[in-house]
Amino acid sequence: MAVMEPSASRIELQTGVLDPCGQVLRRRLSDMQAMFTNEAARQELQAQEGDRLVYEVYVAEIPETGSHILHCTTVIQPGRVADEFFMTKGHFHAVRDRAEIYLGLAGLGCMLVQTDEGETRLLEMQPGTLVYVPPFWAHRTINTGHEPFALFAAWPGDAGHDYGTIETKGFAKILVARDGKAALVDNPRYA
Amino acid sequence: MAVMEPSASRIELQTGVLDPCGQVLRRRLSDMQAMFTNEAARQELQAQEGDRLVYEVYVAEIPETGSHILHCTTVIQPGRVADEFFMTKGHFHAVRDRAEIYLGLAGLGCMLVQTDEGETRLLEMQPGTLVYVPPFWAHRTINTGHEPFALFAAWPGDAGHDYGTIETKGFAKILVARDGKAALVDNPRYA
Repeated sequence: MAVMEPSASRIELQTGVLDPCGQVLRRRLSDMQAMFTNEAARQELQAQEGDRLVYEVYVAEIPETGSHILHCTTVIQPGRVADEFFMTKGHFHAVRDRAEIYLGLAGLGCMLVQTDEGETRLLEMQPGTLVYVPPFWAHRTINTGHEPFALFAAWPGDAGHDYGTIETKGFAKILVARDGKAALVDNPRYA
Repeated sequence: MAVMEPSASRIELQTGVLDPCGQVLRRRLSDMQAMFTNEAARQELQAQEGDRLVYEVYVAEIPETGSHILHCTTVIQPGRVADEFFMTKGHFHAVRDRAEIYLGLAGLGCMLVQTDEGETRLLEMQPGTLVYVPPFWAHRTINTGHEPFALFAAWPGDAGHDYGTIETKGFAKILVARDGKAALVDNPRYA
């Protein structure tokens, strides 16, 4: 029987860059239309400062079956759209009953999770924080600091991704800057 | 439906200690009988220096089903039994067709992997090295440095462990110190 070869790659722990990796996804302001609550502010920021990078995902190339552990690193830039912190789009797993684990590598941020019923939890992250996202929770990471926020993530190979639900409904809560601190508030546009 | 609560724990990145965690396994010299090639040297070391710690595993408490990602940190002390470096026992997954991913956190070492047919590969690890152990490979980590070697590992919740095969047969190769360097040589006791 032919078995897959073991392999080594490298995460630069200060920056979160994974090398080699199968694919680098770059999400710029133009890729984040209607993801932030204030879409007009997003357009204005893009007009003023150009199509800034919001986050990058370094995805390892691994077969997508339940035998495997898919994994990536994510690097979220510091920044805000109006008072809302830069963040990932966030997703459920297509197979809802699949967990994911995250490890903070550099910078400061939060993990926002939500069930299909709109129940939310917020977990603070710093280098070394390990967050376990159990089955059935959508998850989004958010940079609340002044430096890039870098994370490692691993999930079951058969989980798949459902981005559409969050793109359509959003999260019930958003994380915004209030008096120089991060505050979790209701999302006025939550469907 | 009741869903499992998300949770955060902390890996001390300099030491590999995971806190909180469900269970800490401590493997001392007395737990490693017949794991090193030179069993007489292991007994002598234990008699001379006491029942020294060889490695610790900090295991997170997660349900063992395919929906979940099990994970732990491992900290291997520096040391040798005769010329063979301190190492973990090593295991196959009970479900052979399950992968595992490792991230080096601190110290220097190697990942030794082996198929059921005795084919081996050695991968060097340092902080930031990500090693992917595909399905069907037994895996053992080895401290080749002068400081504790700490790693994070994650694997599918339904993988299980088979320690018996390695305890009985060993690995086909062993990692020993030769002229101040690590050398992979045939295991004279490999069954």
